[in-house]
Amino acid sequence: MEPLKVAFLGPVASFSHQAAVESFGSSAELLPHVSFPDAFAALQGGRVDYAIIPCENSTNGSVVQTLDLLADPSGLYSDVKVCGEHYLTVHHCLLTRKGLFPPGQRDYSSITKLYTHPQAWGQCDTFLEKTFKGIERQDVSSTSKGAEIVSKETTERCGAIASRFAAEHHGLDVSEENIEDKANNTTRFLVLRNVKSERTGRLVFQYVNGSPAQRQTSTTPTAQKTLISFMIRQDCPGALADALLIFKDRGMNLTSINSRPSQIRAWKYVFLVEGQYVPTSENADAVSKIIDGLQFVTEGCRHLGTWADQLVDV
Amino acid sequence: MEPLKVAFLGPVASFSHQAAVESFGSSAELLPHVSFPDAFAALQGGRVDYAIIPCENSTNGSVVQTLDLLADPSGLYSDVKVCGEHYLTVHHCLLTRKGLFPPGQRDYSSITKLYTHPQAWGQCDTFLEKTFKGIERQDVSSTSKGAEIVSKETTERCGAIASRFAAEHHGLDVSEENIEDKANNTTRFLVLRNVKSERTGRLVFQYVNGSPAQRQTSTTPTAQKTLISFMIRQDCPGALADALLIFKDRGMNLTSINSRPSQIRAWKYVFLVEGQYVPTSENADAVSKIIDGLQFVTEGCRHLGTWADQLVDV
Repeated sequence: MEPLKVAFLGPVASFSHQAAVESFGSSAELLPHVSFPDAFAALQGGRVDYAIIPCENSTNGSVVQTLDLLADPSGLYSDVKVCGEHYLTVHHCLLTRKGLFPPGQRDYSSITKLYTHPQAWGQCDTFLEKTFKGIERQDVSSTSKGAEIVSKETTERCGAIASRFAAEHHGLDVSEENIEDKANNTTRFLVLRNVKSERTGRLVFQYVNGSPAQRQTSTTPTAQKTLISFMIRQDCPGALADALLIFKDRGMNLTSINSRPSQIRAWKYVFLVEGQYVPTSENADAVSKIIDGLQFVTEGCRHLGTWADQLVDV
Repeated sequence: MEPLKVAFLGPVASFSHQAAVESFGSSAELLPHVSFPDAFAALQGGRVDYAIIPCENSTNGSVVQTLDLLADPSGLYSDVKVCGEHYLTVHHCLLTRKGLFPPGQRDYSSITKLYTHPQAWGQCDTFLEKTFKGIERQDVSSTSKGAEIVSKETTERCGAIASRFAAEHHGLDVSEENIEDKANNTTRFLVLRNVKSERTGRLVFQYVNGSPAQRQTSTTPTAQKTLISFMIRQDCPGALADALLIFKDRGMNLTSINSRPSQIRAWKYVFLVEGQYVPTSENADAVSKIIDGLQFVTEGCRHLGTWADQLVDV
């Protein structure tokens, strides 16, 4: 069978790439895309089977580009649905050229320059302050890009702050590991599919039960998550409370709620509501009952997918 | 009496500066601050009487830095409360050096370079595509900064995309006005005060009834808005729906809801809920009743202010 094609947010060796490898294993064809709309368009157009995109970070919150593409006010991606999720803990490492610093040697005084994405400096403040105080810092467009630059450097002694995954990809040594300040900085990715694709329709069950990479790291989850978007009618005071009560009445626990500008008119919002439930024989039709109920108090209600909850409480 | 001191987000001639002038008039002392936390700290420390900061844009949605500072997980700004709001419609203009292009002359072919903030290029796409196709673009840190650079340029013919307010401040001509693609791109600012300050306590009524700038543009509003933040107890399914129902039961219509990482633990959120109500003799204590009710279903519930609704439906 032709390998699965999976779109991720590039460049190669990015955290999205790592999430794609962890979710789909090495047999899938993983394809970098330059932007969020690019990945959505590739999926809507059937050029890839799945897309994996970041939707939320435990420290920084929602990724609004992803929410806006899912809300999809212009109907560009009407066949794109969520079919899974993947949690990736963000670990930063100090990467150096192969063999430059033997294992165990922690004297990096010959390093004259460091490369990373602007956000990563702030996430590794304690380590950098202690080990690289005053050393020149060069911003780059991604942590993976910094690793690439260091891998090609031949004259200067420099380092990159990036992932172990980027080190493997660019052939660098991991001189220091887990140098981030916050131990539990995790990004949640959504796995998306095109509902019109028969190919991924047949594969969903297989995915839910875990790709090779997943089988090793997580137990089979029993809870399901559902994402639903809707707008509130302008003339209904209290309609949002009524809408959320419908989720509660059907045994759905709300795990997140986000509001984004509807792009229809100013100060009119589209709400993206995510709920969680444990399927039983009684609530098998909970999602469709919720959608039915929402028709009465909301506008433009859409079911954006139901998938297996992968969050294991720590 | 000593003039009021108002913190805004700099540089001078920024949209925040314009919002400060429109809200407080020219008799107040308006002080630029380099960052959001800076403005909050100045207010908490009593170095300014008010701060005016952007909280939401009709196209781009919430300003998360502002939400996080209001949520205030470390209790740094416990005396900062919202006491007002101001809506500013964002208009972009083509600004050029005084006298370079006589009014009515629309031949800008001698202009070789344009300056503006990266976001503004995208907001003026149609005009730029038609009039300045292929002309060199230089990103700057703010639209006002671009205006400042053009005002100091003596050799090259260049232009800035910025506001009429920035043109007046930097002594430039407004060669083209309202060149933005979207006519109704509006930013909402919040006016903040320190609840321990007697000085602003006495002035609130005056502000609500309109500063000189406001009196010309808006009618006295009757509706009030209230902002409340809380977290959901981990062990209460349906608690968010219950919490929002309390607002409804007290006649408060929800106008927005935002969730942000609580910074207490991963995937635990702080919710910022804004509601609107028209005060009557029956619901005079609606806000305190809501706060009382929320104690039973939420954690860390805080009332972040009540103020006059300035949104006039268009």
